[in-house]
Amino acid sequence: MQIAIDRDRDQPLYHQIASHIRQHIRYGQAPIGTRLPSIRQLASDLGVTRLTVETAYDELRAEGWIETVVGRGTFVARTASQEERINRLSSEVSPRGILEDLQRISDIDVLRSLAYAEPDPALFPVESFWNIIANLKPFAQDLMGYVGAEGDAELRIAISGMLRERGVESGPDDILITTGAAQALTLVTQSLTRRGDVVIVEKPTHITLLHLLEAQGVRPVAIPMDGHGPNLNWLEQAIVQYQPRCFYTIPNFHNPTGTLMSQRRREDLLSLARRYQLTIIEDDIYGWLPFDTPIQEPLKALDDSVIYISSFTKMLMPGLRIGFMSSPQPLHNHLLDLKRSNDLFTAALFQAALTTFIRSGHMRAHLKRVVPHYRQRRDQILRSLKTHMPPGVTWTEPSGGFSLWLTLPSHIDAIWVQRRALRLGFAFTPGSAFFPDNSGSQHLRICFAQQPPDIIEEAISVLANIIKQELYE
Amino acid sequence: MQIAIDRDRDQPLYHQIASHIRQHIRYGQAPIGTRLPSIRQLASDLGVTRLTVETAYDELRAEGWIETVVGRGTFVARTASQEERINRLSSEVSPRGILEDLQRISDIDVLRSLAYAEPDPALFPVESFWNIIANLKPFAQDLMGYVGAEGDAELRIAISGMLRERGVESGPDDILITTGAAQALTLVTQSLTRRGDVVIVEKPTHITLLHLLEAQGVRPVAIPMDGHGPNLNWLEQAIVQYQPRCFYTIPNFHNPTGTLMSQRRREDLLSLARRYQLTIIEDDIYGWLPFDTPIQEPLKALDDSVIYISSFTKMLMPGLRIGFMSSPQPLHNHLLDLKRSNDLFTAALFQAALTTFIRSGHMRAHLKRVVPHYRQRRDQILRSLKTHMPPGVTWTEPSGGFSLWLTLPSHIDAIWVQRRALRLGFAFTPGSAFFPDNSGSQHLRICFAQQPPDIIEEAISVLANIIKQELYE
Repeated sequence: MQIAIDRDRDQPLYHQIASHIRQHIRYGQAPIGTRLPSIRQLASDLGVTRLTVETAYDELRAEGWIETVVGRGTFVARTASQEERINRLSSEVSPRGILEDLQRISDIDVLRSLAYAEPDPALFPVESFWNIIANLKPFAQDLMGYVGAEGDAELRIAISGMLRERGVESGPDDILITTGAAQALTLVTQSLTRRGDVVIVEKPTHITLLHLLEAQGVRPVAIPMDGHGPNLNWLEQAIVQYQPRCFYTIPNFHNPTGTLMSQRRREDLLSLARRYQLTIIEDDIYGWLPFDTPIQEPLKALDDSVIYISSFTKMLMPGLRIGFMSSPQPLHNHLLDLKRSNDLFTAALFQAALTTFIRSGHMRAHLKRVVPHYRQRRDQILRSLKTHMPPGVTWTEPSGGFSLWLTLPSHIDAIWVQRRALRLGFAFTPGSAFFPDNSGSQHLRICFAQQPPDIIEEAISVLANIIKQELYE
Repeated sequence: MQIAIDRDRDQPLYHQIASHIRQHIRYGQAPIGTRLPSIRQLASDLGVTRLTVETAYDELRAEGWIETVVGRGTFVARTASQEERINRLSSEVSPRGILEDLQRISDIDVLRSLAYAEPDPALFPVESFWNIIANLKPFAQDLMGYVGAEGDAELRIAISGMLRERGVESGPDDILITTGAAQALTLVTQSLTRRGDVVIVEKPTHITLLHLLEAQGVRPVAIPMDGHGPNLNWLEQAIVQYQPRCFYTIPNFHNPTGTLMSQRRREDLLSLARRYQLTIIEDDIYGWLPFDTPIQEPLKALDDSVIYISSFTKMLMPGLRIGFMSSPQPLHNHLLDLKRSNDLFTAALFQAALTTFIRSGHMRAHLKRVVPHYRQRRDQILRSLKTHMPPGVTWTEPSGGFSLWLTLPSHIDAIWVQRRALRLGFAFTPGSAFFPDNSGSQHLRICFAQQPPDIIEEAISVLANIIKQELYE
């Protein structure tokens, strides 16, 4: 095993050593079971300290690339193979299992993932964002200290402006900054529910929500959707039967189905909610990414009593961990208090950088730049589905967001199809994870936002072949 | 009101306008009630858009500097005066009230705060940290995407190394990265307790813990401390009487008292815990900042069943929002699952930057640089207390951490003293906030870490004068 290190590079030496070994394993030059040099030997060969080599080995061990057998030495681990990594993906099709796999899937080089509703990292505005951070250095002492739990006032002003453009009148004082939309959902669940309470959700619904309801011991009851949104007869029945604490809905480019709730359905939903004094939690995380309509108002624009949740995760970058919510008083103050108790405050540097990003017009420009890419991918996936899928397979046609919902003929098991696809190098999400009752085994979610058109075409063609084999063989 | 803007500066124009107006108000050039130019007028005077001025006014309004009276115009608000800002500080001496004031106090220019146990921003390693972030730009796509809920593997390896130096054998897989120590406390409370359960705490104890127990409906029962740590007779009685879920302790440089638990007390505590199968939560957030002893092992070094919590908030910078915990299985997996449900993951960029900071030796150098400053301030405050305080006032003598605990003669009310001190320009924390039963009205916490020696001397002299007045007049 030949390892070259470069002392002039910024990368720490241990990191260079670990990278080299990783590459050797990846490209098959060091197959499973290969013995690695001892720490003492490698340190002496490279002229580095033993701690440096030890640190590199620690890192590779933690990642599953190598293993040490006491008294015998260090070897390339069985868990280093791609196939083994795929085998280790969760066999449990549940919100927890799917969320646990998120990172693992992205770590397997050979997999092309259409499994997660994530923005494409290649579209991140890295240059402008790093410049903004560099320019914030004079304010570092403030930005690295404690700030208010409610979030940066300037960011709340900027978000208030963004919301106004979409018809929502929320002032800066109505807005709470959260550590991603996930935290907003956690806070609102903590505030509105107790263990054993019922929350109504759509069927299917957002994985993270199901996971956090389970963690908090809150019971989700799911009502069916159609092409216009949630079925309100079912909702009314569920209200009467379960006396739920609230209804969680994703009206704009629903995850996983991509459905855009119709205007009529919105009005009917709100009037039903008023009649039964039902609290509505609106998740608008995809609402900023419309492909075909110029602007889509949230429910919050029609009724200010709605609890509105969104985030910069999908429209900008997940790694910011910045979400936001607007809710009526006195709930807002209770949520602020819970936010403070959960993690005190959200990192100020990213809040300040994001404020500059919005104020200087970068946010608007970014959306203008990325939406055509996502639209093109949506167009591609619809074309590919039409070309390759056999009769009996149906799908939704999203007008925004990151995902669509595929329905297989009833005797084909989506979990089987998904496992088969993994072996062939493509990841999708099995539908059951989106149902609180683990039904939905006929469905797959396909996320088209992260892959370029040629990969999408390949993925759908592979998927169609798996389904055809199942149908005709 | 004369406002000059500079189009060549990086700062947005609205921000420059807001800064200028703020300065005018601060230095008395625009007293309360002064009418500001209309948006149209100022925009035309400065040659900027009306939106720019509107944004500046929005910001100043959100901050309480100005107010708009519909139909009459915009004026310097009554809430803009320093005195008014002091009056608006929470009148509620509770964990919630004290936490709410945190940001407000730091926003009042005239106040010198010794109220919060925070590191001194002037000691933040801004240069090296910003350089590290700049060098991470090539990895931006990964660092701004989704990462694992457990935290960056390299950071966990680095933390494992730091812990090993303090006698704790926690491998990377035992460590969970959290959004500050506050989130670690939230997760462990969510995992171990249900509404109505009892948790034993020290008396006094950490404000944030009391606040989050209240938010989660968990009942704290407090047991007295002496100079060696918690009183174990009381602890045993509380165990028998309340069957608590766990005991929360801060053995190293306790907040608020600064007490270092003696070796003997540690051993006795752990053997008591084993006898009653009591779960111990160790908060070691100050353990990295010893003034007089070279190294202080955590409880975790003596007993691996302890749930260990720490963070980079005090030893480095609060704005990172990076805490960590080490706990035995299967609890670790449950905490990881709750972490995922609470906010999915902690921002990767700061985790990566912190990893480099630790690995490259900056962390060690930083501690070596800051500890002498904090030690000098501790020495100063003990000297000043000895010089100025009248007989009957006593205090603890911390050998590390950020705070000490002052006890007043029994007929003097600490809240009154603290209010008086605010008027004279110094903030301390009233003791009641650290007691679940709101007793402790004889105590003040004094945090010496954020102020240079001359301010500490002035603060203690002012405080002593207030107490003497109360005693002798």
